[in-house]
Amino acid sequence: MTDKRNVKADRLRAFIASAFRACGMPEHHAARMGELMAEADIGGQDGHGVFRLPMYIRRIQAGGMSVDPKIKVISERTATALLDGGNGPGHLVMSRAAELAGEKARTTGVAWVGARHSNHAGPAFLYARMPLAENMIGLYVAVGSANHMPPWGGTDLLLSTNPISVAIPSNSQPDIVLDMATTVAAYGKVKTAADRGETMPEGWMIDKQGQSLTDPSRSGEGLLLPIGGPKGYGLSLIFGLLAGTLNGAAFGKDVVDFNADPKAITNTGHFVIALDIAAFADVDEFKRQIDGIWDQMKSSVLLPGFEDIRLPGERLAATSAEHLANGIPIPSALRDRLDALAENLGIERL
Amino acid sequence: MTDKRNVKADRLRAFIASAFRACGMPEHHAARMGELMAEADIGGQDGHGVFRLPMYIRRIQAGGMSVDPKIKVISERTATALLDGGNGPGHLVMSRAAELAGEKARTTGVAWVGARHSNHAGPAFLYARMPLAENMIGLYVAVGSANHMPPWGGTDLLLSTNPISVAIPSNSQPDIVLDMATTVAAYGKVKTAADRGETMPEGWMIDKQGQSLTDPSRSGEGLLLPIGGPKGYGLSLIFGLLAGTLNGAAFGKDVVDFNADPKAITNTGHFVIALDIAAFADVDEFKRQIDGIWDQMKSSVLLPGFEDIRLPGERLAATSAEHLANGIPIPSALRDRLDALAENLGIERL
Repeated sequence: MTDKRNVKADRLRAFIASAFRACGMPEHHAARMGELMAEADIGGQDGHGVFRLPMYIRRIQAGGMSVDPKIKVISERTATALLDGGNGPGHLVMSRAAELAGEKARTTGVAWVGARHSNHAGPAFLYARMPLAENMIGLYVAVGSANHMPPWGGTDLLLSTNPISVAIPSNSQPDIVLDMATTVAAYGKVKTAADRGETMPEGWMIDKQGQSLTDPSRSGEGLLLPIGGPKGYGLSLIFGLLAGTLNGAAFGKDVVDFNADPKAITNTGHFVIALDIAAFADVDEFKRQIDGIWDQMKSSVLLPGFEDIRLPGERLAATSAEHLANGIPIPSALRDRLDALAENLGIERL
Repeated sequence: MTDKRNVKADRLRAFIASAFRACGMPEHHAARMGELMAEADIGGQDGHGVFRLPMYIRRIQAGGMSVDPKIKVISERTATALLDGGNGPGHLVMSRAAELAGEKARTTGVAWVGARHSNHAGPAFLYARMPLAENMIGLYVAVGSANHMPPWGGTDLLLSTNPISVAIPSNSQPDIVLDMATTVAAYGKVKTAADRGETMPEGWMIDKQGQSLTDPSRSGEGLLLPIGGPKGYGLSLIFGLLAGTLNGAAFGKDVVDFNADPKAITNTGHFVIALDIAAFADVDEFKRQIDGIWDQMKSSVLLPGFEDIRLPGERLAATSAEHLANGIPIPSALRDRLDALAENLGIERL
């Protein structure tokens, strides 16, 4: 159903681009930011799309992020590269990284491109999905932009949700797209619960005495819990070392809370891998096999209480189709913030 | 403390090698099997070491696994390869894969080598750790050798524990080595609980009605639970597609329970990635940074009830040192099985 408060994807892209342009970002970069940030909202990851625009703009205005970053390759092999993101938005840096990984993997079969001096890049699936257009598999990992998790058994906030996304193309089914944090709940879900005055389920957070914390208004004193206890802690640590430390980017106590101080340089690290399917298999046959696996999972007998079995990427595809047809819902509180931003920047309202 | 029932590492290696030699395995392969299987026991992964020897031998004697596999590269790019393991033991196949990945990554920066027509390879850490000797980071993923997990919301056993291991070298601290299943508990832990007559903790398994299952003697009707619910399911699925389907190896309903039928060809799939640290960073400086991250985690204030913070790989290093010094404990039930095996093969007892 079309809601008159919904916004068409094209309008959302244009609005985001105009905001960055008003801050002095070159046209091609601004257009790319509009595309990628709107893609997050189109896919239903609304905590990572236009919701973040006021904060990005605040960071730019405070001098904490560059609108015209010089993205440079600072070391390179035939199948690897390390980019310096010039303190630009992560979207621009990791688009370039995914593009370069795809170019390299076309010849070498696989490529791993890391980046330092980058920033928050929105949802992980954006970059994992980029290699699909070239019949490649994509993997993306980032150091999260604020530490909300301690090492297992501790209380110091040294780790982030450090997400991973992996995208694998199918034939006639939606592409398989996993996009997950290494914590039980992403911090955005905690903030959403706080906004709505809801109680959090047990298992999302504990306090520093190890007691369950379900009141999201107390999240500042809380610790996010990793999936699988020490396993999720291990994954977060490993992803942080690979996406952060290896790239010369921030990890551990060096991670800057990008919401807390808009002037502090975040030195965000990420990496993307492109894997050329044709180096291993016949591409069409492989995609048909992915369809077959899809069908196997879907055909399983259900547990009591479940209505269907979902594949990773299924909801992303359904939400994207729905939002492209009917527009993207913008909650009124967010719309108010975007209206204020438009006034601040002297651009047309959304 | 040295227990007179403990076995020295050298003796364990020799015993394992002699068992394979007695089955007609060429000397260099048999010696390699002895090294790698003993390495599992040395590291404390006793469910994946000599414990598996009777089953491997049974498989060889039944004609289900080759003692002299022709391990062939069947497709190759500069940074990738796909191996056909010739239905040999996974240890031989994935050693070759890790070696090839290291050779390639020395030039290209990263290499991804997959394998099909392989078999169970023991603990994942063995192969993730191989690139460390060349100052590389290693990653290893396998399709587990029996399905004990359904897709999230279902009851059909279509997925396995599909483990991942990642190894990152440090300077003066133990190397970081994560080795984890995508399920809350590996199936071996269920079998160990059954052997000991113990009750399992809630959260390891449920039955097909979705009720908690804590009696390990009922594990045949149970479903292993993934870490983080749908997240662990997603990881298991993705790892299976990458290690299995992409390599032309078994995944989903095609996975053969390697314990159930020693004649059935398992067509096990795995992959290993070698990532050359020098393509991104100064190797010595990077290793010192890993030490620094180690210290950060260790220095965290503790939660009530915890005595220390562990890093992935810490227990592996401590157990390895202890077992190398004092020998490896062999439970009497296992010793009886190994004695029977020795008699069967006409080799000297352990």
